[in-house]
Amino acid sequence: MKRNLYLTTTPVEEAREIYMNALGSAAAPVTETISVIEALGRVTSEAVYAKYSSPLYNSAAMDGIAVVSSATLGASEASPLTLKPGRDYMIIDTGDPIKKPYDAVIMAEDTQETGDGMVIRAAAHAWEHVRPVGEDIVVGEMILTRCHRIRPIDIGVLLSGGVTEISVYAQPKVGIIPTGTEIVEPYEDPKEGDIIESNSRMFEAMVRENGGMPHRYDIVEDDYEKIKAAVLKALDENDLLIVNAGSSAGTEDYTVHILREIGEVFVHGVAMKPGKPVILAKACGKPVIGIPGYPVSAYLAVENFVCPVLRSFTGLRESHDQRIEAVLSRRLVSSLKHREYVRVRVGRVNGRYVCAPLARGAGAAMSMVKADGFCVIPQESEGYEAGDTVEVMLFRSSEDIDRTVVCTGSHDLLLDVISDLMSGEDEGIRLSSTHVGSLGGLMALQRGEAHITPTHLLDEDTGVYNESYIRRLFPDEEMLLVKGVGRIQGLMVAPGNPLGIRGIEDLTRVRYVNRQRGAGTRVLLDYRLKQAGITPEDIDGYDAEAATHMAVAAQVAGGEADCGMGVYSAAHAMGLDFIPVGEEEYDFAMRPETYEMPEIKSFLRLLTGGEFRAKLGELGGYSFENTGKVITIRG
Amino acid sequence: MKRNLYLTTTPVEEAREIYMNALGSAAAPVTETISVIEALGRVTSEAVYAKYSSPLYNSAAMDGIAVVSSATLGASEASPLTLKPGRDYMIIDTGDPIKKPYDAVIMAEDTQETGDGMVIRAAAHAWEHVRPVGEDIVVGEMILTRCHRIRPIDIGVLLSGGVTEISVYAQPKVGIIPTGTEIVEPYEDPKEGDIIESNSRMFEAMVRENGGMPHRYDIVEDDYEKIKAAVLKALDENDLLIVNAGSSAGTEDYTVHILREIGEVFVHGVAMKPGKPVILAKACGKPVIGIPGYPVSAYLAVENFVCPVLRSFTGLRESHDQRIEAVLSRRLVSSLKHREYVRVRVGRVNGRYVCAPLARGAGAAMSMVKADGFCVIPQESEGYEAGDTVEVMLFRSSEDIDRTVVCTGSHDLLLDVISDLMSGEDEGIRLSSTHVGSLGGLMALQRGEAHITPTHLLDEDTGVYNESYIRRLFPDEEMLLVKGVGRIQGLMVAPGNPLGIRGIEDLTRVRYVNRQRGAGTRVLLDYRLKQAGITPEDIDGYDAEAATHMAVAAQVAGGEADCGMGVYSAAHAMGLDFIPVGEEEYDFAMRPETYEMPEIKSFLRLLTGGEFRAKLGELGGYSFENTGKVITIRG
Repeated sequence: MKRNLYLTTTPVEEAREIYMNALGSAAAPVTETISVIEALGRVTSEAVYAKYSSPLYNSAAMDGIAVVSSATLGASEASPLTLKPGRDYMIIDTGDPIKKPYDAVIMAEDTQETGDGMVIRAAAHAWEHVRPVGEDIVVGEMILTRCHRIRPIDIGVLLSGGVTEISVYAQPKVGIIPTGTEIVEPYEDPKEGDIIESNSRMFEAMVRENGGMPHRYDIVEDDYEKIKAAVLKALDENDLLIVNAGSSAGTEDYTVHILREIGEVFVHGVAMKPGKPVILAKACGKPVIGIPGYPVSAYLAVENFVCPVLRSFTGLRESHDQRIEAVLSRRLVSSLKHREYVRVRVGRVNGRYVCAPLARGAGAAMSMVKADGFCVIPQESEGYEAGDTVEVMLFRSSEDIDRTVVCTGSHDLLLDVISDLMSGEDEGIRLSSTHVGSLGGLMALQRGEAHITPTHLLDEDTGVYNESYIRRLFPDEEMLLVKGVGRIQGLMVAPGNPLGIRGIEDLTRVRYVNRQRGAGTRVLLDYRLKQAGITPEDIDGYDAEAATHMAVAAQVAGGEADCGMGVYSAAHAMGLDFIPVGEEEYDFAMRPETYEMPEIKSFLRLLTGGEFRAKLGELGGYSFENTGKVITIRG
Repeated sequence: MKRNLYLTTTPVEEAREIYMNALGSAAAPVTETISVIEALGRVTSEAVYAKYSSPLYNSAAMDGIAVVSSATLGASEASPLTLKPGRDYMIIDTGDPIKKPYDAVIMAEDTQETGDGMVIRAAAHAWEHVRPVGEDIVVGEMILTRCHRIRPIDIGVLLSGGVTEISVYAQPKVGIIPTGTEIVEPYEDPKEGDIIESNSRMFEAMVRENGGMPHRYDIVEDDYEKIKAAVLKALDENDLLIVNAGSSAGTEDYTVHILREIGEVFVHGVAMKPGKPVILAKACGKPVIGIPGYPVSAYLAVENFVCPVLRSFTGLRESHDQRIEAVLSRRLVSSLKHREYVRVRVGRVNGRYVCAPLARGAGAAMSMVKADGFCVIPQESEGYEAGDTVEVMLFRSSEDIDRTVVCTGSHDLLLDVISDLMSGEDEGIRLSSTHVGSLGGLMALQRGEAHITPTHLLDEDTGVYNESYIRRLFPDEEMLLVKGVGRIQGLMVAPGNPLGIRGIEDLTRVRYVNRQRGAGTRVLLDYRLKQAGITPEDIDGYDAEAATHMAVAAQVAGGEADCGMGVYSAAHAMGLDFIPVGEEEYDFAMRPETYEMPEIKSFLRLLTGGEFRAKLGELGGYSFENTGKVITIRG
C-alpha cells in the first residue's frame, strides 16, 4: 500500500470556505412543520405571526368586581357607595371577560360585601384594571423571526397567540462510521494492541448538541472494500457522513482514496494543530468528512468542519464562545505552519485572569476534560511569551471561573478528593489543580498565578518542611502556610518485589523512573541519595521524568521501570508493593488576603472535615496531626 | 366561596429557605446507573475513576517505522544508515503498539525505502515518538468529580478510560396540572371568555431544560373535588407536582385549601413582582408548588421555586446567569413591598450597555420574548432614576448583545420585516426595536441609547419631514438621515365603514383611539386637526393612547373604538377598511460613526434590497422613491 505522504495545509478559514462553497445545495436545509408543544430547541425556518390576540377579549386584570364606571362616580372614604348586584357589579376573578355594561374592575381588597350589596369607597374610571384585547399580543404581530431557537417562553407565547404548528428546519441525519482494525468496542475487554473506540460516542453527543440526529454504525476494519461499502450504505441513509480515523496518509488510511473514487475531495489536510489530517469531501451529493483518530484532533475537526455543515442544515447560528483576556503563565511556542489550539486552565487571581497551558498532545484527551478553554495561536504567530496577555475562548462561563480555586504545585491524590467534595457542595465552587511540583507552584504563587500552592519541600539543613523555602521566595512579604497532612513516601515496586529492593541503596542496580525537577519527591530523593553517598549518574533512569505520583506508578506497573518514588496511595491504587522511606509534610502556602476568600474558606473547611479524613483513611498512608493549623511566615 | 384575601409576602430568599428546609428528604436525589453512551447532559452522583490507562500500551505517536534505537546510532545526513526489515525496523502507523525489541519511532517523512531496506539520515533516541502507557489517562485517576454535567468530551474520555457505566442522579418525574374552567387547549377554537392554556407547555419545556421529565395532565375545571382527585393521582405518579393557576386568593382559587387539607402549606405569597401568589407545599411526602396564571408570573415562579427543587433532585448546580452593568434609559419606580423583575432590552451603544424597560404587566408574555434580560429591583429599593447604572441578568450572551442594532423610535411593520431578514443572514446580527414614537426615539438617540431612530415627523411650516427636528435636537452635531420609505397614513375603520367616516372632519362624532405623544402619527393628526379647525377636546378618545399601529388597529377591530389613524399595512393585517389621509416619509436618523458599523451596513443593505421591497409590496401602502439616500444634517 502506498503512502500518501503529502497532505496539504490549507488554512482553517480557507478550507471551510472552499468546502461550504463546494457543497452548495448538498448542505441546504430542509424544513418541516411540527407541533409547537414539541418545538423546544428547534429553529424556525420562517417568521411566525400571531393568529389570535392575547388577551382575546377585554378582561379583568384583578380579582374583584366588574363595575359600570359611571355608577361608581362620587364614591369616597367619606361617602361610601353601595352597588347592587347584577345591575352595578358582578364578582369576577382575574382573566374573566369584562363585557357591557361593565367597563372597569374594582379590586376585591377595596370592596366590602353587605346584605344590601357591595360597598366601595372610591370611584373607578373607565377601563381601570381591565386588560384590553391584544394588550400582550396583537393578531398579525410577528412573534418570532426566522432562525430563532425555540425557548420555553416562546412555546408559551406562540400557543397564547394561537399558533399550534410552526415550520422549522429538519434535523439532519448524521452517519458516523468508526474504522480501524485495532479498535474495539468499549464493553469488550481490550488486549494489547487494542484501542477502545470512544470518538464515535463523543461525535454522537456533539451532533445531538448541534441539532442533528446521529446514527452510529458498527466498527469497520481497515479494508478498502469494506469501508467503501459501509460509506455507500451510510450515504444512502443519512444527510451527512463522518468517517473516523484513516483520514491521514498512513499505509492503512484508505478513506481519502475511497472518497476520491466515489466522489470528490476538496481539502485533505488543514493548517490546524491538533487536527491536521481532515478530509473534506462530497459523495453521492452529500457531505462526507474524514476525521483524524486522536481524540483532541477529532474534537477540533468536528468543531471546525462538521459543526458548520450541521449549522447549515439546522439554521442554528454559531454560538459565540465567551472570550476573555488572560495573562499567560508560561511561554508558548508555535509554528507558522498551522493555527494551534492550546488547552488552558483559567483562574481569576488578584483581580486578573491567568491561564496555564495544559498538555498539548493530540492524544491528551484528559486535558480537554480539565481545560477551561482554548488559547488559539494564529497561524501567522510563532507563539507568546510568559506574561503576555492572550485571548482565551472559554468552555465554561466566566462566572464559574470566578468561583474557582487555582491550586498550582505538588500533586497528591488528596487534591482529587477535595475537588470531588467541593463539587458536592452547593456553592458551585471548583478546585482547579495544575501539577508543576512544589517549587514550580511557589514560583507561580509568587507571580500571582495561583491562589494556593501544595508543597512538600524538605530543608536539608533544618529538617523542617516548606517554611524556609517560602521565606526565601517571598522575602518582603508575610505569607501563610496552612498545614496539610503527613504523608508516607516510599519506593513503589512490582507486586511481590521481584528484584528484592529494600531501600535507596538498591537504586543503583534497577531501572528507576524519577519525578521532575522542583518536585518535593525529587528533593527528598536527592537528599537521601546524598546521605547514602550515591550520585545521580549511578542511577539508570534518573533523567526519566514523570509529572505525577500516578504516572510514576503506572510506569512501574507497566514494566517500563522497576522502581520509582511516590506516595503510598498511588502504589496502592496501582496494586504495587511499597517500601516506606519516610514521612513528609504536605502543606498549602498562600497569601494572607487569599485566606479570607470565601472559596478558600470552603476549601479549608473541607480539608479539616471528617469526610475528607475518612476518604484519605481509605487511600492509606496519611496522618493528620496538624491539619488546618496556620503558620505565619515573615520573609 | 370565601376569598382568602390576605396572602403573606415572604421575601424570595426566605421563602425558598423555609421551603427547602421543610422539604428535607422529600427533595432528596435518587441515583441510577446508566450507560456512558447515553449520559450526555446527565449529572454524576459520585466521582468517576479510570479503569484502564490510555494509551493501554506504549504506542507509536507517528506514522513511520518502529526501530531499535541502539541500531540507529551514527546515522546522519553525511552517513545514512540502511536498516534491515524485521530486525532493525517494522513499518507502523500512529497508535500501533511499540514492543520489544523496538523502542523508538522514526517518522515516515524521514525514511526512504530501497531494495535493501529502509534508509535513515538521523539517529533515534530511546522512546522518541512513542506515547508511553498512561500518557493521557492513568488507571485509578479521577476523571470526573461528582455533580458534573456530562459533555461530549467527557463521554470520549470515560470510554477511553474503560468506564462504560456511571452513577448519575435520576431525572425526577414532574407532574403538571393545568386548572381553570375558562382555559381551553390550544388546538380548540377559543370563544369569548376562553383563555388558551399555554403555561403548562412552557413548564414542560422548562422542566426538560432543568433535567426533569415532565408529565402534563389534562385540564381540570375549577372544582374542589376534581382538582383534589387530580392532585392525589399526580402525586402518586410523580416526584414533584406543579398546579397551575388557582394559586391566589380568588373565589375559585381552590389549590391552597386542597393542599391544606391533604398536606401542609409552608408559604402562600412571596414578595416578588410579577409572581406573588405562589404556594409552596408538601403533600403525600412530595413537593407541590402552586403557580400563578399570568405567564410572566408563572415563568418567574417556576424559575425561583420549582427550579431549585428540581436542582435538588438532579444535582445540577444553578447556572449563574451572565450579569452586566447597563445604563437605564428611563426611570423605574418600584415598591418596598416586593422584589421586582423588570424585563429590559439591552444594547451596546458607543461602548456602553444601555437598557430600556419593557412592559411590566404580569400578562405581558410577549415582552419576555422580546427581552434581553431582567433588571431586578431589590425589595429594599424604591427604584432607579434614568441614567443610573443597574445590573442586568442577561438571557442571551453579551456577545449576542454586542451584535444587536438598537432601533428606538417610531413603529412600523417594516421593522419586523427587516428584523426577520437580518435573522436569516449568517452574521448573527439582530435588530432590537423599541417603540417610543419618533420624538422619543430622537431623544434616546441624543442620550446615546440607540443606534438608529426611525422617524416620521412633519414640519408644519415647511412640509419637510424629519430634517428640522434633527437640526433642532442635535444643534452642535453633524447627523445623518437615511431615507426610508414613503408610507400612506389613513383612518382605520371597521370593515364596510359602518359609520361612514370620510376624513378628519368626521372624528368629532366617533369614538377615536389616539397614538402616544411624540408619535409621528399623532403629530400628523394634530396638524390635520388644526387645518380642519378641530380642537382635541372635540374628540372622544383623544386621550386614549395606544403604542403601535397594530394596537390601534386591534382596538378598532375589537370594537373599543370606531376609528384610529395609522398605516395601511396595519389596517390590512387586521381586516379593517382604510381611508388614506396622506403619504409621509419614514426615515432613519443616526450619527455618522454609527453609519460605519458593520451591523448598520448589514441593516442598510437589507433596507435597499429586493427581498425587503417584495415583502413590503405584499403588505401594501409603501413607496420607495429615495430609499437608502443619505442626507447630512448640520445642526
